[in-house]
Amino acid sequence: MRVLILGGDGYLGWPTALRFSARGHEVALVDNFSRRRWHSEHGTASLTPILSLEERIAAWQEGSDERIRSYVGAVEDGDFLDEVVAETRPEAVVHYGEQPSAPYSMLSRERAVETQHTNVIGNLNLLFSLRDHVPDCHLVKLGTMGEYGQPNIDIEEGYIEIEHKGRKDTLPFPKLPGSLYHCSKVHDSTNIHFACRTWGLRATDLNQGVVYGIETEEAAGDERLITRFDYDELFGTVLNRFCVQAVIGHPLTIYGSGGQTRGFLNIRDTLQCVELAVTNPAPQGEFRVFNQFTEQFTVAELAELVREAGAKLGHEVEVQSFPNPRIEMEEHYYNATNTKLLDLGLQPHYLGEELVQSMLRTIERYKGRVIDRAIAPQTQWKPGELEASSPAATRA
Amino acid sequence: MRVLILGGDGYLGWPTALRFSARGHEVALVDNFSRRRWHSEHGTASLTPILSLEERIAAWQEGSDERIRSYVGAVEDGDFLDEVVAETRPEAVVHYGEQPSAPYSMLSRERAVETQHTNVIGNLNLLFSLRDHVPDCHLVKLGTMGEYGQPNIDIEEGYIEIEHKGRKDTLPFPKLPGSLYHCSKVHDSTNIHFACRTWGLRATDLNQGVVYGIETEEAAGDERLITRFDYDELFGTVLNRFCVQAVIGHPLTIYGSGGQTRGFLNIRDTLQCVELAVTNPAPQGEFRVFNQFTEQFTVAELAELVREAGAKLGHEVEVQSFPNPRIEMEEHYYNATNTKLLDLGLQPHYLGEELVQSMLRTIERYKGRVIDRAIAPQTQWKPGELEASSPAATRA
Repeated sequence: MRVLILGGDGYLGWPTALRFSARGHEVALVDNFSRRRWHSEHGTASLTPILSLEERIAAWQEGSDERIRSYVGAVEDGDFLDEVVAETRPEAVVHYGEQPSAPYSMLSRERAVETQHTNVIGNLNLLFSLRDHVPDCHLVKLGTMGEYGQPNIDIEEGYIEIEHKGRKDTLPFPKLPGSLYHCSKVHDSTNIHFACRTWGLRATDLNQGVVYGIETEEAAGDERLITRFDYDELFGTVLNRFCVQAVIGHPLTIYGSGGQTRGFLNIRDTLQCVELAVTNPAPQGEFRVFNQFTEQFTVAELAELVREAGAKLGHEVEVQSFPNPRIEMEEHYYNATNTKLLDLGLQPHYLGEELVQSMLRTIERYKGRVIDRAIAPQTQWKPGELEASSPAATRA
Repeated sequence: MRVLILGGDGYLGWPTALRFSARGHEVALVDNFSRRRWHSEHGTASLTPILSLEERIAAWQEGSDERIRSYVGAVEDGDFLDEVVAETRPEAVVHYGEQPSAPYSMLSRERAVETQHTNVIGNLNLLFSLRDHVPDCHLVKLGTMGEYGQPNIDIEEGYIEIEHKGRKDTLPFPKLPGSLYHCSKVHDSTNIHFACRTWGLRATDLNQGVVYGIETEEAAGDERLITRFDYDELFGTVLNRFCVQAVIGHPLTIYGSGGQTRGFLNIRDTLQCVELAVTNPAPQGEFRVFNQFTEQFTVAELAELVREAGAKLGHEVEVQSFPNPRIEMEEHYYNATNTKLLDLGLQPHYLGEELVQSMLRTIERYKGRVIDRAIAPQTQWKPGELEASSPAATRA
């Protein structure tokens, strides 16, 4: 199958490219190295030493008969993207090519505008290119569980049947996104749904939970193929960040009470889910939504897990509550459905102490590369809010 | 009160500026003349001969003690908008400054991107300017009833209480926007709701129906103050377009069966509603949504009304069904709530034969200015769809 991966140099995009290439698919990828640039601008970097895209691809091709084609450019550049789609004629597009950080989107007006422009316009350009060149192509779009927010009812997969004043309809599940990044993902979903209803395109929105982990099957054994691993305030996700903090002896940075509940999944399961979506495409004209996570945890539960796993490896891990820089509920109802990918055959890698220990050991190898300054939360959802608040209470 | 009007040179923006100025408010307006430019690009124009913004303002100030300040620039230019907000320190912002045409947004990828960029980024810039300079200011944002689409349940005003698996929550009403323009308005609502929840801003989203009419109290008696009146395929709304067609002897262009039901209101009622929203602001932190229309009609009912009113003035009006260029349901359930503005005191001007006759008489005065070529629908929601379809059936 011809698979085009947008954002193919990223944390998930690169291992996804390897996965499809390893399975014998014809892989092309697009990236404009925004993530590398954003890190340079903030003086941060991946924990793992990643090669340039060209070098990575060369390293992969040493051990594989499959070629990976790469195109350097921005999805916001409609003419560029249109040429890539026309040339590669993909049967599936996996779209990771977006600004993925909530705190980054809240840094300033300029960053918020950059986020929404990159994400919404890039995705809109893609919809037109699919319509004009490959209307049968299946779009697999990375969304986020954060589009739903924390409603006081169970979260369904994209749609909900509503009975109202004696009538019934199945409608898009209402959204309460928690940052301007999350808003941009809601906008994308709205645009894709429209394109499926109107142009007959087909798409799967993968509303993904928080991803953790480093190692994937295809990269194992060759450090040159390792994916990036972010632990900084802007691009690091919570469990990855906690593991780095544990290894360098920094207190785990819980925001507020730590009662925030979210869906989580292993990076290996991201690859499985994307593969399942691609190999079981949505019917023509359908906008299908899968909730892509395997387990729910509170942030405090994750901190405790890291503390225990760390102790067994000799790390004395402190857990510290920071004043919450985000505007969010810290104690709330949360119950999200996630059966559709299981029905397609997803075999989850559940989170346990063993997995955390393996992450900690990998991180220990790169400990010398950690930039301490990048750890603590700086970005506030509502500037000025924290200045007056009391110092953080140490909890463990 | 200090009122800032974005899009103050437009069909509704200009009469709104006059209304607030006539009531003694301190009015400033922003426009970058996009609408005038879009008309030039398409070889179309307003039926009414409108003056330049400078001349209009000068004409108004001849008869009024109130000054209207104007700023020429684009809302997408964040620095410009920020300076205007900082300088004018509005207590209310009425935001009409968007690309308002569904067919325009469906013309091409470039026009779709322009629409979503102008609308989403302009509105996002505004939210930051309000947060940073006038967090107490009340944002009155023009939305559209088209954000809801045609669900099979009654449409509520912005929110709906959902009972699901034994739990309850009041959540944003699900949206099924019918064009990429309508999508952009949904995106705006999502961003504004977020800003109210997160930054404590206050806003009223006026989900407006289709507006008709030309005359407003403040402009009456001085042709120099008349507002623009669009009748072309891109910027004309249905009833205004039908009236122009009746006067020039062009068949009324019904799309498909004409069973499409929508909410409608008189331009005088738009001004009333905006004034009611501004003088009864939303509480701080609230994103309030009003459905702003006074009556529901099918397109076929409007055509019949124009045919009858036209006949009384000696116009022989034909009604012709065109193959529908839009992808939409032509027969559907439609029942939308609109009590909140009535509760605030709205006194509707209902549509009747007399009003249509008065519109027809005004249009007769400018009949010589009509550009025939601009009348017929050209823009297709799904390009290529109509080429194969059968010729339009004449229905009356």
